[in-house]
Amino acid sequence: MAIILGIDPGSRLTGFGVIESKGSQLRYITSGCIRIDISKDLAFRLKQIFECVTQLIKDNNPEEFVIEQVFMGKNADSALKLGQARGSAIVAAATQGLPVFEYAARAVKQAVTGKGSAEKEQVQHMVQILLGLPGKPQADAADALAIAITHAYSNHNLVAKAGGARQKRGRLQSFSV
Amino acid sequence: MAIILGIDPGSRLTGFGVIESKGSQLRYITSGCIRIDISKDLAFRLKQIFECVTQLIKDNNPEEFVIEQVFMGKNADSALKLGQARGSAIVAAATQGLPVFEYAARAVKQAVTGKGSAEKEQVQHMVQILLGLPGKPQADAADALAIAITHAYSNHNLVAKAGGARQKRGRLQSFSV
Repeated sequence: MAIILGIDPGSRLTGFGVIESKGSQLRYITSGCIRIDISKDLAFRLKQIFECVTQLIKDNNPEEFVIEQVFMGKNADSALKLGQARGSAIVAAATQGLPVFEYAARAVKQAVTGKGSAEKEQVQHMVQILLGLPGKPQADAADALAIAITHAYSNHNLVAKAGGARQKRGRLQSFSV
Repeated sequence: MAIILGIDPGSRLTGFGVIESKGSQLRYITSGCIRIDISKDLAFRLKQIFECVTQLIKDNNPEEFVIEQVFMGKNADSALKLGQARGSAIVAAATQGLPVFEYAARAVKQAVTGKGSAEKEQVQHMVQILLGLPGKPQADAADALAIAITHAYSNHNLVAKAGGARQKRGRLQSFSV
């Protein structure tokens, strides 16, 4: 049994998802989105990511932290911004003593939909099914949950399938900073 | 009078420089380089930057934190890595309650050498002169000191000139992690 925190970092929105994995069973705990106030300066924004991730760890006591591995395209400016957000989230996990795992976006899509090139909507749909949620999670929260699910499956060498998920509802959470 | 911490972040080497600025006078306090052990995983490396910068703040009690503003070239992968290192350093400053300032590389070169397109060696040379150091500081430490000097000049609307610096020696410091 392990509680897993998944993070989908971004400079405007950072998705998070917490699940519990017990053998082949998954239980949804919480998910949501850290909304960064882009009117504030960079230091304030990065501190908010760091503090929100730290708070999530303190509130949910995850044993493992998972984040999407990034292969950047052509835009170096976006890569720098994403790197800063990603660094802030990883530092929060590392200073809380959590092991940090990374999965490529393709591996995450493959694990939750069976197709490495799946659309965002398919990921949202499958996260809803796999965790038995009452509705589609917000896109960034769904990505964060998908990363956590990928790690849970990877720990137990499971192939993603809807039947492997336990149906239980959790709360949807959102930070606005 | 203000103690200023300058940081030149990088994914392998992060330069730091601490100076005291009192009117037109500058005093060297310390400088050096955080050497990241690239055999360790990303989370460990970012945590080391965070922890070393936090320790520098605790040891030197700076009132202001200055970091180079980055305009990335074409390499998105380097931008991501630099962003992660930069994010870790800024988060350390922000969580210690320090105001964070940024200067473009060109502005730093202009402030310490009088020429925005100056070579790295020229920056090292002028940092040595301006702070009255017994030798050339290591390149990343020199950049960090140059950023701190730029901020000191900016606070006092000074033009960079060798005569404005007080001659006093300080220690050269290095973290190896």
